[in-house]
Amino acid sequence: MIKPIGWTDDAVVLLDQRLLPGREVYLELRTVDEVAAAIRDLVVRGAPAIGVTAALALAMEADQLPDDPDEFLRGLAEAGDRLTAARPTAVNLSWAVGRIRRLAARTIADGVERVRERLREESRLMYHQDIEINRALGRHGAALVPVAGRVLTHCNAGALATAGYGTALGVVRAAFEGGNAVSVLADETRPFWQGARLTAWEMQHDGIPCTVITDSMAGHLMQRGDIDVVIVGADRIAANGDVANKIGTYSVAVLAREHGIPFYVAAPTSTIDLQVASGAEIPIEQRNGDEVVIVNHQRIAPAGVGAAYPAFDVTPSRLVTAIITEHGVVRAPFEEGLAGVCLAGASAE
Amino acid sequence: MIKPIGWTDDAVVLLDQRLLPGREVYLELRTVDEVAAAIRDLVVRGAPAIGVTAALALAMEADQLPDDPDEFLRGLAEAGDRLTAARPTAVNLSWAVGRIRRLAARTIADGVERVRERLREESRLMYHQDIEINRALGRHGAALVPVAGRVLTHCNAGALATAGYGTALGVVRAAFEGGNAVSVLADETRPFWQGARLTAWEMQHDGIPCTVITDSMAGHLMQRGDIDVVIVGADRIAANGDVANKIGTYSVAVLAREHGIPFYVAAPTSTIDLQVASGAEIPIEQRNGDEVVIVNHQRIAPAGVGAAYPAFDVTPSRLVTAIITEHGVVRAPFEEGLAGVCLAGASAE
Repeated sequence: MIKPIGWTDDAVVLLDQRLLPGREVYLELRTVDEVAAAIRDLVVRGAPAIGVTAALALAMEADQLPDDPDEFLRGLAEAGDRLTAARPTAVNLSWAVGRIRRLAARTIADGVERVRERLREESRLMYHQDIEINRALGRHGAALVPVAGRVLTHCNAGALATAGYGTALGVVRAAFEGGNAVSVLADETRPFWQGARLTAWEMQHDGIPCTVITDSMAGHLMQRGDIDVVIVGADRIAANGDVANKIGTYSVAVLAREHGIPFYVAAPTSTIDLQVASGAEIPIEQRNGDEVVIVNHQRIAPAGVGAAYPAFDVTPSRLVTAIITEHGVVRAPFEEGLAGVCLAGASAE
Repeated sequence: MIKPIGWTDDAVVLLDQRLLPGREVYLELRTVDEVAAAIRDLVVRGAPAIGVTAALALAMEADQLPDDPDEFLRGLAEAGDRLTAARPTAVNLSWAVGRIRRLAARTIADGVERVRERLREESRLMYHQDIEINRALGRHGAALVPVAGRVLTHCNAGALATAGYGTALGVVRAAFEGGNAVSVLADETRPFWQGARLTAWEMQHDGIPCTVITDSMAGHLMQRGDIDVVIVGADRIAANGDVANKIGTYSVAVLAREHGIPFYVAAPTSTIDLQVASGAEIPIEQRNGDEVVIVNHQRIAPAGVGAAYPAFDVTPSRLVTAIITEHGVVRAPFEEGLAGVCLAGASAE
């Protein structure tokens, strides 16, 4: 099984996804600041994966914080803020930090040493729960994949974007494990190539047929009838069902609607942000345009010509056929359904 | 002025567009087969540019063909076939070859030596006419560009795709020269990066503001209201107004319609193929998937994972706001309008 995230007694261990598929290098990170930098630099990416990583990082940091309860909680809060600041769009970061901080605050009367133990246990529980959540989500979603369905996916919402198994690719995996001869068309997903590098690598690892396409080919292939269903992940889902996900997702959703192709979003309830009424309120991370025009350390565009790099976009819920969560499949009207699965998710914690 | 195509007494001279913007290298090609290979390998690309190149190559080849009139015409026909086989989608190749062959057949009674002179003159006339056509087309199109309009373009339909000045970028240039503070958003245009490499280079050359985006960002920027108008070129336009152009154009057209943004196609009448009733009959070139997954000599996807590379797609005419030609702007119903500008184009020859 693909393991993007792990730990030792005093480190968070991350598979460096910048180097895949060419090299499998694990980095051991020993401070929250190192982990925050790794999240910012895309060593680890994917909303659920960076959430679990942040929880493990806080538990690790707790060992270094003062023994005084107030100072401990203050230090934990500051460390959490540094982690959530690393990437603004995915809500799983603040979800995970919040869960760790609430546990610490709730149990601080038991003493800091006991809290440290609890945070260690909780962060590892969150890791294992994430995998279980994805398996449950995969089972719910597999029923939506047509027999021998040709699935288009954008970015990587796979094992590498989670603690394991994946969300969108978890659905693909569950369908495949159930005997469905699914195949995957992977948008290469510029500029970080999550599709060409990561999704293709995962699918090859599991023996699921996969063909890479440029992001610009999806419309043509839909027009030709070569795509049966679209399944993507999410970085944040608003209360009304609007979905923030990797830049380009919105275009795929518009194209899917144009061709009458179902457009599914697969995400754990920790990605749903009921505090945000609609996608208009979701902050869109703006990254450095050099990441667009410098490819393999070589500048593609002429020096002096700039590039834009909004890292995410928002797909309005009207283009979303259904949202697949670990507690079931939610369809429009989304408000009620999303609130329901979130309630189930909160009680499962 | 940017000069992608030239000639000497015994060679066709091409700016090697594979190396731009990093290096400006001109190749001297001395046989039709060398020119055909250069067209296939994208040393020169863009429908009008490969048309003019093919005409110059045939005139060059004529000097090497036998003096016997029948053998000369047969040799010219075979050379023409080798050129048109280089790339199947752009109709300008067979348009240019046909024009040269018809001239030879019409004047062969004057003797082969005189025909050789005429072909040389004709091919150079076609070169100069292409630039004039683009300037005329640019003037017609400039009126359609809003003041300070933010123009999205896909691929490179610029000076580099023509003998000079460009089609879609000819419209941008004409607007800019007329005092309109236009700016360009250039789709990077995977996998050959015509936007990031060539359009950005041309716009910088002329001092026209240009920002590169990944192909996946267009939808998001339209949604944000950052794009006023789309202008693209064409490789072949069917009698009904369906437009074959670089892969990804269709997706842009769907997105433009979704957002109520005008979608213009700028092309000379030599790109209109009245023999083809609709886009369904236009052959779509399938290139090697390695061109998608090997970037800067480095494989992006894992070895063993393949890629698809349809090099063009077809935008149905219902998504086309207007087609800008050197003889005026054609709007729906396209059949009549396109036939009219083609008649004007044929009489101009």
